[in-house]
Amino acid sequence: MSFREVEKESFYRLLEARRDVRSGFLDKEIPEKILKRILSAAHHAPSVGFLQPWDFLIIRSDEIKQKIKSNFLAVKEREAQFFTGEMKKLYEQLKLEGILEAPINLCVTCDLKRDESNQLGRSEQNQMDVYSTVCAIQNMWLAARVEGIGMGWVSILEESHIREVLKLPESRKLIGYFCLGYVDEFKNQPELESKGWNKRLDLDDIIRYDTW
Amino acid sequence: MSFREVEKESFYRLLEARRDVRSGFLDKEIPEKILKRILSAAHHAPSVGFLQPWDFLIIRSDEIKQKIKSNFLAVKEREAQFFTGEMKKLYEQLKLEGILEAPINLCVTCDLKRDESNQLGRSEQNQMDVYSTVCAIQNMWLAARVEGIGMGWVSILEESHIREVLKLPESRKLIGYFCLGYVDEFKNQPELESKGWNKRLDLDDIIRYDTW
Repeated sequence: MSFREVEKESFYRLLEARRDVRSGFLDKEIPEKILKRILSAAHHAPSVGFLQPWDFLIIRSDEIKQKIKSNFLAVKEREAQFFTGEMKKLYEQLKLEGILEAPINLCVTCDLKRDESNQLGRSEQNQMDVYSTVCAIQNMWLAARVEGIGMGWVSILEESHIREVLKLPESRKLIGYFCLGYVDEFKNQPELESKGWNKRLDLDDIIRYDTW
Repeated sequence: MSFREVEKESFYRLLEARRDVRSGFLDKEIPEKILKRILSAAHHAPSVGFLQPWDFLIIRSDEIKQKIKSNFLAVKEREAQFFTGEMKKLYEQLKLEGILEAPINLCVTCDLKRDESNQLGRSEQNQMDVYSTVCAIQNMWLAARVEGIGMGWVSILEESHIREVLKLPESRKLIGYFCLGYVDEFKNQPELESKGWNKRLDLDDIIRYDTW
């Protein structure tokens, strides 16, 4: 099965239109069918040994969101100390999560014990199950975008706090915590680019040939 | 910018048509323009703090491929010891890399020192730069598929050996080693599924709500 020119263009357009979304969430539920479609996109990611090591925890409870949000605020305050001057001012103005506004929060974990005897492809590189789970996250991110749903990765959180609040079992490694919801617009550029936090690198500067 | 029904369908078809490709590579060069397009897809992945921590090392040298292949053979022999009986027989029959046949090998690394003062989103979860790099890999995998190019992740390799052969600097963490090339067909199912190595999990079994 091959893809036509117009399909290729649409796919590349999607890649460039995907954003990390932390604001502008609408008060509109994500229908169960659409949510499943996005999770199914994740579930079709590649996985080492066909392990499919991921689990998805969907959070709608306001009480839980509140607990996560408090942790975010504490960690953000600590993180702000890494910056000074103009960067600190900019950091403090940035909206870095949409925990309470997004109708859905999602925690993605990797099951370190899944199919444990199946060491294919990971006896030497044992983090491959974690990497598979991140591939699933990227699939989901793109699927959310194609559905008009914004998704943001909230990494300004303490793992131990999330584990406790969500009661994650020991076998599950936290990979990411996300906010998901419909938005009225997707920005043309990453916000960290348009607000001057960082510049897009020139691709040619990060390509090398044969050996370093 | 929104996506039409037909574009969504095309995208979901792409996700399901992507394979980990280890065989069937054609003796046909990947034009520079197409290769850049695939790497540009990777370069449009999300990254923590807009770090873009990835580097791409394109390998065409047969001498280097040979060295990597020998390491693969040694590690595969060790890995085979994890299996017994029917699984061992199956493991030994599986083709798990296309290092020599694929016109291009690619090593993707994460620069642990890039923009070091920019700790946004990773002061607490410091592996976020690595996860960003894996998101880039998944973008690339999908872009390769849309271009009719097979891509396979070779993780049956020793990191220290790859570092040495490719002369990776200390600042660069190895994330993945890949084979890329045009193929005559993409299989309908993951090979590990069709050959009975593992089964696809039921999505509903790996979704939970609010707390574990």
